[in-house]
Amino acid sequence: MNQGGFRNIRLRLEYDGTAFSGWQYQPGRRTVQGVLEEKLGELLEEKVSLIGAGRTDAGVHALGQVANFKTSRGLPLRAFVPGLNRLLPSDIAVLEAQEVALDFHSRFHAKRRCYRYQLITNRSPLRERYAWYVRYRLDVGVLTRSAAKIIGRHDFTSFSSSQAEAESFLVNVSKAGWKQKGDSLTFEIEADRFLHNMVRILVGTMVDMARGKLNPGDLSAILKARDRRRAGRTAPPQGLFLVRVSY
Amino acid sequence: MNQGGFRNIRLRLEYDGTAFSGWQYQPGRRTVQGVLEEKLGELLEEKVSLIGAGRTDAGVHALGQVANFKTSRGLPLRAFVPGLNRLLPSDIAVLEAQEVALDFHSRFHAKRRCYRYQLITNRSPLRERYAWYVRYRLDVGVLTRSAAKIIGRHDFTSFSSSQAEAESFLVNVSKAGWKQKGDSLTFEIEADRFLHNMVRILVGTMVDMARGKLNPGDLSAILKARDRRRAGRTAPPQGLFLVRVSY
Repeated sequence: MNQGGFRNIRLRLEYDGTAFSGWQYQPGRRTVQGVLEEKLGELLEEKVSLIGAGRTDAGVHALGQVANFKTSRGLPLRAFVPGLNRLLPSDIAVLEAQEVALDFHSRFHAKRRCYRYQLITNRSPLRERYAWYVRYRLDVGVLTRSAAKIIGRHDFTSFSSSQAEAESFLVNVSKAGWKQKGDSLTFEIEADRFLHNMVRILVGTMVDMARGKLNPGDLSAILKARDRRRAGRTAPPQGLFLVRVSY
Repeated sequence: MNQGGFRNIRLRLEYDGTAFSGWQYQPGRRTVQGVLEEKLGELLEEKVSLIGAGRTDAGVHALGQVANFKTSRGLPLRAFVPGLNRLLPSDIAVLEAQEVALDFHSRFHAKRRCYRYQLITNRSPLRERYAWYVRYRLDVGVLTRSAAKIIGRHDFTSFSSSQAEAESFLVNVSKAGWKQKGDSLTFEIEADRFLHNMVRILVGTMVDMARGKLNPGDLSAILKARDRRRAGRTAPPQGLFLVRVSY
């Protein structure tokens, strides 16, 4: 596994996205990748390039982001988690470090990703940092029936904000559903890949339907239209969590 | 109920204490009482004095604080919750407003208060805003046995930070116990009254015992000593929640 003295290390990460301009490195901005590469550089005393499984947007959180990097240093594996957590700010933590095959790539080798979106229907200062407070009366039956229509292999052009970026808009959704608990509504979706803003546009559209602003039967028609303008609003970032990445 | 045109209104409140210098009004500081009195003044166009059931400290949260005030204005009762929530910042919300007898006093008439304290034993950026991350290995059996010794009527001088303030340090604790769920440990305590910093010193002391820094059998001896110096550290504020006040 150790060719030419290099090792490939895979990290599992949790972060509070509130104070980050998203995952991806941008000069002059505080990003999760930027802070992690800086602290890995300090720990290992070498420049490190981190590959993340999912490029979460500004304000989006992660319970189980995955990222890998190669290093020529001999630091024992068990030293990565405590060593990094000592250097990292309180809004990022490393949960696990593993040594993986040298050809392992966090993004290309991911089989499925799971995202969660949290809504609350009452004001709640202690939950609003991590949820979207929706002040409209929602028909939960509409949410549930809409989610069922997402499952399967579809072209999600209507639910993507960057039309140029992708070569294909086909996504295989293996799970999608809402759970209600008191005044809290949680949407969970698992798919092989996600387009830019896909979960947030899906949630915004389902909420528009459940509050009667869009026709509740239209989700299949919006998918078929392949037109972002047919879908609803983009839900705000603070309710979204990257839950896990499966390989 | 409406004598001389006055009504007594009782509010139930939730707040995130992170950005507040506690409940109690202090000139030049952002306090929960200060912000609420200002917004009530705007809503009612008259000066209002708010009486809170529990004076939570800086950084302490509330899921169910209770406060009352008298007003001469004729605003319909149903208008208080939406009217105030429109004016309040996102870290305070009014959950309920009720009209109560003119002699009702939130603090003096409270029969029991319930507080919760949240610990986590792994780093977790998404929970650290509302919990104390304890990096030591804890003996949960010691926590449970210590909590059982708190129940009943005791002099809590050893667990109070302001020796001067109270006339009596006798507190009647009706419930006290820990619950464990994964890496999260929650302490809940209900009593007729609470002394200054009492829950935080109790939690800090039990944690000191559970990590082997203080003798685990000593809780009854510390109570008997009536000496703050015999107890352990004061746990940090962000793990503490005022859960409810009973009348």
